[in-house]
Amino acid sequence: MALDRFQDFLSALVAKQRALFVGSEQESIVDLLTKLMGTSGEVSGIVTARQALDHYVGLSEDQKLAFFQNLESSFNADETLVNLAYQAYAKNPCSQTLNKLSLTTEPRRLELLRRLNQTPGATHELVSMRTDLLKFLKQQPELKTVDDDFVRMFTSWFGRGFLQLETINWSTSAAILERIIRYEAVHEIRDWDDLRSRIDPLNRRCFAYFHPALVDEPLIFVEVALLNELPGAIAPILESGGGEVGRSSDFNTAVFYSISNCQPGLRNISFGNFLIKQVVQELQSEFPSIKTFVTLSPVPGFSHWLLNKSAVADDGDRSQLSELKAEAQALSQNQTAESITENADLLRKAVFNYLVQAKKGKFPLDPVARFHLGNGASLHQIHPRADCSDKGMQQSLSAMVNYLYDLRSIESNHESYASEGIVHFNDKLKSLLTKS
Amino acid sequence: MALDRFQDFLSALVAKQRALFVGSEQESIVDLLTKLMGTSGEVSGIVTARQALDHYVGLSEDQKLAFFQNLESSFNADETLVNLAYQAYAKNPCSQTLNKLSLTTEPRRLELLRRLNQTPGATHELVSMRTDLLKFLKQQPELKTVDDDFVRMFTSWFGRGFLQLETINWSTSAAILERIIRYEAVHEIRDWDDLRSRIDPLNRRCFAYFHPALVDEPLIFVEVALLNELPGAIAPILESGGGEVGRSSDFNTAVFYSISNCQPGLRNISFGNFLIKQVVQELQSEFPSIKTFVTLSPVPGFSHWLLNKSAVADDGDRSQLSELKAEAQALSQNQTAESITENADLLRKAVFNYLVQAKKGKFPLDPVARFHLGNGASLHQIHPRADCSDKGMQQSLSAMVNYLYDLRSIESNHESYASEGIVHFNDKLKSLLTKS
Amino acid sequence: MALDRFQDFLSALVAKQRALFVGSEQESIVDLLTKLMGTSGEVSGIVTARQALDHYVGLSEDQKLAFFQNLESSFNADETLVNLAYQAYAKNPCSQTLNKLSLTTEPRRLELLRRLNQTPGATHELVSMRTDLLKFLKQQPELKTVDDDFVRMFTSWFGRGFLQLETINWSTSAAILERIIRYEAVHEIRDWDDLRSRIDPLNRRCFAYFHPALVDEPLIFVEVALLNELPGAIAPILESGGGEVGRSSDFNTAVFYSISNCQPGLRNISFGNFLIKQVVQELQSEFPSIKTFVTLSPVPGFSHWLLNKSAVADDGDRSQLSELKAEAQALSQNQTAESITENADLLRKAVFNYLVQAKKGKFPLDPVARFHLGNGASLHQIHPRADCSDKGMQQSLSAMVNYLYDLRSIESNHESYASEGIVHFNDKLKSLLTKS
Amino acid sequence: MALDRFQDFLSALVAKQRALFVGSEQESIVDLLTKLMGTSGEVSGIVTARQALDHYVGLSEDQKLAFFQNLESSFNADETLVNLAYQAYAKNPCSQTLNKLSLTTEPRRLELLRRLNQTPGATHELVSMRTDLLKFLKQQPELKTVDDDFVRMFTSWFGRGFLQLETINWSTSAAILERIIRYEAVHEIRDWDDLRSRIDPLNRRCFAYFHPALVDEPLIFVEVALLNELPGAIAPILESGGGEVGRSSDFNTAVFYSISNCQPGLRNISFGNFLIKQVVQELQSEFPSIKTFVTLSPVPGFSHWLLNKSAVADDGDRSQLSELKAEAQALSQNQTAESITENADLLRKAVFNYLVQAKKGKFPLDPVARFHLGNGASLHQIHPRADCSDKGMQQSLSAMVNYLYDLRSIESNHESYASEGIVHFNDKLKSLLTKS
Repeated sequence: MALDRFQDFLSALVAKQRALFVGSEQESIVDLLTKLMGTSGEVSGIVTARQALDHYVGLSEDQKLAFFQNLESSFNADETLVNLAYQAYAKNPCSQTLNKLSLTTEPRRLELLRRLNQTPGATHELVSMRTDLLKFLKQQPELKTVDDDFVRMFTSWFGRGFLQLETINWSTSAAILERIIRYEAVHEIRDWDDLRSRIDPLNRRCFAYFHPALVDEPLIFVEVALLNELPGAIAPILESGGGEVGRSSDFNTAVFYSISNCQPGLRNISFGNFLIKQVVQELQSEFPSIKTFVTLSPVPGFSHWLLNKSAVADDGDRSQLSELKAEAQALSQNQTAESITENADLLRKAVFNYLVQAKKGKFPLDPVARFHLGNGASLHQIHPRADCSDKGMQQSLSAMVNYLYDLRSIESNHESYASEGIVHFNDKLKSLLTKS
Repeated sequence: MALDRFQDFLSALVAKQRALFVGSEQESIVDLLTKLMGTSGEVSGIVTARQALDHYVGLSEDQKLAFFQNLESSFNADETLVNLAYQAYAKNPCSQTLNKLSLTTEPRRLELLRRLNQTPGATHELVSMRTDLLKFLKQQPELKTVDDDFVRMFTSWFGRGFLQLETINWSTSAAILERIIRYEAVHEIRDWDDLRSRIDPLNRRCFAYFHPALVDEPLIFVEVALLNELPGAIAPILESGGGEVGRSSDFNTAVFYSISNCQPGLRNISFGNFLIKQVVQELQSEFPSIKTFVTLSPVPGFSHWLLNKSAVADDGDRSQLSELKAEAQALSQNQTAESITENADLLRKAVFNYLVQAKKGKFPLDPVARFHLGNGASLHQIHPRADCSDKGMQQSLSAMVNYLYDLRSIESNHESYASEGIVHFNDKLKSLLTKS
Repeated sequence: MALDRFQDFLSALVAKQRALFVGSEQESIVDLLTKLMGTSGEVSGIVTARQALDHYVGLSEDQKLAFFQNLESSFNADETLVNLAYQAYAKNPCSQTLNKLSLTTEPRRLELLRRLNQTPGATHELVSMRTDLLKFLKQQPELKTVDDDFVRMFTSWFGRGFLQLETINWSTSAAILERIIRYEAVHEIRDWDDLRSRIDPLNRRCFAYFHPALVDEPLIFVEVALLNELPGAIAPILESGGGEVGRSSDFNTAVFYSISNCQPGLRNISFGNFLIKQVVQELQSEFPSIKTFVTLSPVPGFSHWLLNKSAVADDGDRSQLSELKAEAQALSQNQTAESITENADLLRKAVFNYLVQAKKGKFPLDPVARFHLGNGASLHQIHPRADCSDKGMQQSLSAMVNYLYDLRSIESNHESYASEGIVHFNDKLKSLLTKS
Repeated sequence: MALDRFQDFLSALVAKQRALFVGSEQESIVDLLTKLMGTSGEVSGIVTARQALDHYVGLSEDQKLAFFQNLESSFNADETLVNLAYQAYAKNPCSQTLNKLSLTTEPRRLELLRRLNQTPGATHELVSMRTDLLKFLKQQPELKTVDDDFVRMFTSWFGRGFLQLETINWSTSAAILERIIRYEAVHEIRDWDDLRSRIDPLNRRCFAYFHPALVDEPLIFVEVALLNELPGAIAPILESGGGEVGRSSDFNTAVFYSISNCQPGLRNISFGNFLIKQVVQELQSEFPSIKTFVTLSPVPGFSHWLLNKSAVADDGDRSQLSELKAEAQALSQNQTAESITENADLLRKAVFNYLVQAKKGKFPLDPVARFHLGNGASLHQIHPRADCSDKGMQQSLSAMVNYLYDLRSIESNHESYASEGIVHFNDKLKSLLTKS
């Protein structure tokens, strides 16, 4: 029984059983949640969960907010029981009293999520529910505890052992490809022809993680170009469409030029770091000739940092860096491809020092840098005039960057980065470093 | 990428990375666990988890016991932090302080299991690990808390939404069928021919639950015979091999004659109740002509109850029941198929009253009865001389029982059973009831 | 090994072996064919076949013509051997001499096609080769014998027993869907959204035949709308996109609104008649509530007939029909949807009599009518103003027709149609019949 | 729609339509064949074909013989039409008259087979039908023409382009594996455990060809052992069961130790030669370390030749060879493993000269030698005491042989073997050659 048939079947089962076992459809969602937490009959549990989820979808924004507020206030633990459990633990702290205390203090929200997830297709809807929740979070910081419980539950459900890596190509089902188009977040896929040019040619690859409970829904995907040289600009990759390619054995470089998270509801449930490493291995086994694995990445925070006074302030009185920054600021007034070519060295130097010296805490200010360096990659090369699209000009004056994934050093890179915030970079870049 | 290729690939990945990143293979398992809890680099985490699991397999029984004892004593929570978190909660019991308390009191065993489960194939090995643990549990009741944590983790991983129902038939892979032979626990499958006679004929069906992380490993399966009448004995089902069968549309009865749990390490993670109900739905949609869904079940506790004095005592001075029991005891001296035929009425009456009146707490003494009645089935019919195998004679003087799954009443049956222990039975059996 | 991997693999094999075994790539195609017919070594046979096919693709139009002319003139049989075989047969006509004669007279073109087909992927290229041939056929009627041999070979390869019916839906691979868009010949599919609206909704279905040697290539497909009434116009079907649909059990009518042959190179290798019948059965088993299976078909020859004098002449002096025709001709001057509505009865009557009375030989003049009536369908209803597109107005003044597939009568309909050209039609249409 | 569902579906379709369209089931098979050749309605054609095939299965041996005799005598061509077609050809021999003659002389048996093959599942039954026919052939040589027509049809249907190579392993369905056990013809597979030891271990492989119209039916399969040395005996391969194996990259030798044709009804439709070459390529791509591809083959005709006087006579007065043979004959009196060990050199020499010098026409007398040498393999090594089973002792005094498949020379070997019967052998064996 294929998974989709299984889902179909269970949906039908629920539909039938709903008719058999259930009373009024008019029950409020609060009633339904109460009922769900009280059921012991499992069929009625599944049906009630389905009703609650269906009900949720129909709520207005205000009602959804109320729903989450109710989760925050009414699905905690029984205070008396917590106190008793703690007293037992305090008297005799051992595994038995601790386990009891741990179970007692578990917010009832977690059990609620587990029960909702019993019904077929629920995982998908719970991920969507968290997407809603995240929107409220900015205005309603008290809902953070509810979100923490979602994260706690999802971390367990979406453990790495349950993820499946799939190749995305022109033989993939339209149902999945349509989502790839929709979810691409870095370099927009314009239409199906554009998609085909990214996944069908012999020198293009695309990989995605899936989870068995989210049918046809990629969690994250990465697009790869196989080349014979380090790429210095994004346009040739996006436009070439793979074109005429010789035999595959020629490739010596794999470029990860786009990584997109697909499920906003799974934010902070991390897959990306492992995806790249697994894809490196996959490609290495298919193409033994490939020796270099790099990204071609944007530098999204550069312009903002360059122009931002407070950012300058962060750097204090670092004289040389401040001078460099002041000098580079002039560039941003003058954003033509030509002027950038003329000032390529200055731009390269400014970007390098931004990535290496501009910090948020002990880590780099740039979010993309944080992601790849945190994975154990190193800063490999900087390309001025690499992305002359409006977006590229705006965020980084067209500069892009290669991060290098070298399996022999990612683990040690990661360790020193994680503990001390050390940014590893190519020796050849050393001369660009400005004293701060 | 098929799941098995995914597993292969990850195994290779670990093998390679182990070579790249890891030092001595001589580290003790305690060191490895400590290291695992301390890692932040994820590749080294996966490798350390793999090492720990490989190490575990090589332990002696005594070392395994020590391993679990270590889990019990050294992977609890930080007492100071628990105290602090509780004080914050006691001062201001709200979702925030509760969540903090809940996280702080979570036994570190849970995080350990999560981290071990990061490495490919780990789920299977953790299930095996619990199988070992269960054996120690009788002698070492203090390990109960460790087991509770396994259950807590498994309940989350093996949630119903992640189970996949598969049909088992002659087109199923040998890798799976071989396990079906091995795991059959009720009516032994002698060899591949015997297996084929149970899954290949048009009037036989077999269904199993699978989990994506346990490749080729059934969790539980049920064997079904499609018939034109209520079956009164097991031998014709096992022997007939389906034989000549007319068109499928003729069937009016589906008989669940064998249900086997496959994974001892998943004990108490319940799948069986839902399996039967889902199979009922599946069969109903394929064969609209089938109106009756029954089991043909053993009565494993009958003989023991009949002969056991203390069990009699349980029933107190219930005069008529005691008399019936005394009368029926004579039967067990005289176990030939013939004598049973002569005393069929007595046996039927005794079995009925055993199932309905012999209790463990408020529920029936018989474990199979507890399972099906707890699912919402009702006691439908009793067949003396239904299983004349040695095992059948021994445990129930050859009697077997049909439990009826009627979707219209299982939920209400379940409710009254769960709350009050009410045993629902066929009206036609009423006359057999003896006053207690 | 999936079929595609099999193809990949064989391509690689050929590529490698080509390098190993083969001399110059400069050989002419005539040399290659000669070599191919002379090879006994099978690897060299496969390689030579591959070379010949690759060579063919690079030929100019003139060279292709010369290639086919060479097939016509130089790949017949050995005249002397034919004479000898005939003399032996004439002396003693028996199965032995006949078989010998039959083998001797077999044009060597057939063996050439068989040998070309040994190489992986060849079937597809041979189908394309015939597409080329068909274009030459009009100007070069002597090539008809070459085409007859293609047909003879294809008939054997594409026997019904080797066809596979597949459901086309949104889970189908993009590689196949892209061809569905391209091959749709009746009602153009504008883009992927339009495609989705035809195959994804619950009340739409699409089925195609595939052949194992033509990977991802549909041979023919049919689009179906499931409705609750007989459709009287095509626009609502194409536009509705399935929209909101209740439970599937409601449908009572299945409409085949588009049938497209995909492979011009397989012209006259008939699949269509069987496809519809198989789909009828498929739908009947999925939707027992569907009782009516009809087409919604164009009447492509109507306007031409109406305005064509010679066509009138065909009908001789049939007074009433001629009058009707003359009257209807006026309509075509005045092609607005309004005017057609006003003259609906006249149009209906004219279309009916065109379909029933205008003949080519003993069969209807209209090609679509010939197809469906030849399949055993009957003329069921006529709809004026059913297709107001430019194409629809032009070819039939907007009229469309339902042909009814009733499994109980298609075989008898077919027999009387095939032998006597009888056009079966709905009794309710009888009154429209004009004396000729 | 999976192929099996397609078959199921069509069976149901036929079943239904049979009920709808067909009269008496009592028609004789002759009537049915006549009807089948006369039908133009395609549904009735399918149904009639099904009836004829069903009818055939129920015939007695005598009736089957009569059936084939009827095919031989009554399904030839129309004599008058043949004469007319020939006269037209004789007058003007061109592609047109030839094609006409070719079609006219085609035995109606071929069209009959095509029409029978229209019905689902027919291909399998036609293969079985030929199995029956082959049994009659020895006694009824006049049926040879019927068999020739089966071969002619099958050659077209089972063209190489339609074959699919599949890996057989422990994940293969039981339906297929069961046939592998049944069809193994060289070294019997005792039971499922024995099977597993041949397909599951890391150093064992099995490959089979399938055809889409014969679902679950292998056509031919080969068993392979991956080793680190040239094998000198069969027992270690059969017994070892793969045992402990290091990493796969260690293998340097692949041994084809068993090749079995599965379908007696496809005799003379050759697959074996290509299978080995394709498997060589497959293994080479998976294990680049494997450099040597050899068989471990029996020498089935050796003992018979050694003891057979007439065989000696064949060799005429070749003095040295006759002496060798006379000397070796003594061995066969004395068949113990010990005595063979003592006389290993003599046996090796005798076997070598048997393979190289004993001929049937210009080719080797030994059938296995003919197969592999005809494929382009060369005689690589001879092993006395390699198969001490009863069968091995009896047919070759325990000797076995390696034939080497070297892709660089198979094509040239094949050519000189095919044209001149040259037996290529390892230079190291040269010294064993005895003057004849």
